[in-house]
Amino acid sequence: MGRPRASTAEIVVVGNEVLNGEVLDTNSNWLAKRLYASGLVLRRVTAVRDDLREISAAVREALRRKTEWIFTTGGLGPTDDDMTLRGVALATRRRLVLNSEALEMLRDRYSRLYEMGVVRERELTPSRLKMAMLPRGAKALRNRVGSAPGSLLKHGRSWIISLPGVPSEMKDIYENEVEPLLLKSARRTFRSVGGLVVRGVPESALAPVLSAVSRRHKQTYVKSHPKGIEAGRSVVEIVVHGEGGSEEEARRVVEEVLRELQEQVKGLMPASLERIEAREGG
Amino acid sequence: MGRPRASTAEIVVVGNEVLNGEVLDTNSNWLAKRLYASGLVLRRVTAVRDDLREISAAVREALRRKTEWIFTTGGLGPTDDDMTLRGVALATRRRLVLNSEALEMLRDRYSRLYEMGVVRERELTPSRLKMAMLPRGAKALRNRVGSAPGSLLKHGRSWIISLPGVPSEMKDIYENEVEPLLLKSARRTFRSVGGLVVRGVPESALAPVLSAVSRRHKQTYVKSHPKGIEAGRSVVEIVVHGEGGSEEEARRVVEEVLRELQEQVKGLMPASLERIEAREGG
Repeated sequence: MGRPRASTAEIVVVGNEVLNGEVLDTNSNWLAKRLYASGLVLRRVTAVRDDLREISAAVREALRRKTEWIFTTGGLGPTDDDMTLRGVALATRRRLVLNSEALEMLRDRYSRLYEMGVVRERELTPSRLKMAMLPRGAKALRNRVGSAPGSLLKHGRSWIISLPGVPSEMKDIYENEVEPLLLKSARRTFRSVGGLVVRGVPESALAPVLSAVSRRHKQTYVKSHPKGIEAGRSVVEIVVHGEGGSEEEARRVVEEVLRELQEQVKGLMPASLERIEAREGG
Repeated sequence: MGRPRASTAEIVVVGNEVLNGEVLDTNSNWLAKRLYASGLVLRRVTAVRDDLREISAAVREALRRKTEWIFTTGGLGPTDDDMTLRGVALATRRRLVLNSEALEMLRDRYSRLYEMGVVRERELTPSRLKMAMLPRGAKALRNRVGSAPGSLLKHGRSWIISLPGVPSEMKDIYENEVEPLLLKSARRTFRSVGGLVVRGVPESALAPVLSAVSRRHKQTYVKSHPKGIEAGRSVVEIVVHGEGGSEEEARRVVEEVLRELQEQVKGLMPASLERIEAREGG
């Protein structure tokens, strides 16, 4: 497309509870939406168990792919099975060290909890201190909702950002501590999305039309989602993603493709068409 | 634990819509639950874009880890951007060939749709034939809900099972075509799960107790989930997973650990304890 390509991102989800099916991971979907809206390309999401080798392997693989923004979620708490930062340290050949910013955040936090009567002692016990051990060179990210600070580590050309698994804590740190940096530092593309619902033409008959239109418009990505059969007619949703150097340009390419698709589909068989409003911004 | 370890599994989720945050992937959570209940160990879930290199890389990596049951979801439809089976073929150095079982399934399917008046022609157009192209050596898996057959491929010591992304189709094929084979062929462990909700003791104070109990009981996995603060008291959920050579044994180890935890937590500070009923079977 002639423009510098957008920054790449990956997410490493850590937690047995996800791989045992106990917990539906919604964190990566939330982050995926935010990254998409910010104009980055999320290339991969990897969920691994609470296992030091598995965590460090997943982070190392993301580094090897030269992914620029690597997020981890989960595994930052006080218990021994929370070992994400050990995994990040191993993957980047660093040591875990007592981080003075994180220490300060935890002191504040437990003083407040002590004053509220939630905890019995204000001192930093070994379990609490564990949450202040960050990879050498990392910056601590303030957690306004829970105890464990996040971690931001620049390694080579990659940022490794470790967020808690509790959704409210993850979102708080992302919004307040990470997104401002990302919007300033990442290479972003502008995006627009539009769609059509086609009733009466099966996906297999739409396929050649979609291929032909996609080939003519390299700045767009056209995808069909079969929605089953209603009242004897196939229902297919077509989603058109466009990119451009500006919001204006992204919207224009999507509009062009939707117009072409509408004309071509009308020629296929008695079909009804319905526009879907754009769902995500540039 | 002395017993042969359980078979390993991975899931490769294919689809830009997942990585763009448009669609929350619930397929892998559904499969994770089923695999857990069947006594396998799900090691990793990887979501990748509709990109031939990304798909084949993810499958190849799972093969390199000697994962025994590799599932893919999504990317089996008639359109060009559905390329999961091309990715599986590339990863296993096979060719895509016209699969005669799949061909028969698609003939049946489109005859029925033609008779119902859903499609205009009963013939297998190139887009429809695409769904009958499976990696050489694969077995087609009947789809009773939609058009695209699944694919089952034995490669070395791994099974590669490709399922559609539409949840109802994925579930139908898994339940009818895959699970019976898996229950017959996989090495399975028996599991039990129990839990406690602790009010009044923060996670950082529970951590040393959990570590000590875990170390004494190698057949269990103890995990704490902080649930925030209610009425000035920390709420923490503790989940205990046990394994054994029989359902009976798995249940027994979980009961033992829960009893020990209850006693130890009572000694900590004024806490209230509540048992959670077992949530998943052996």
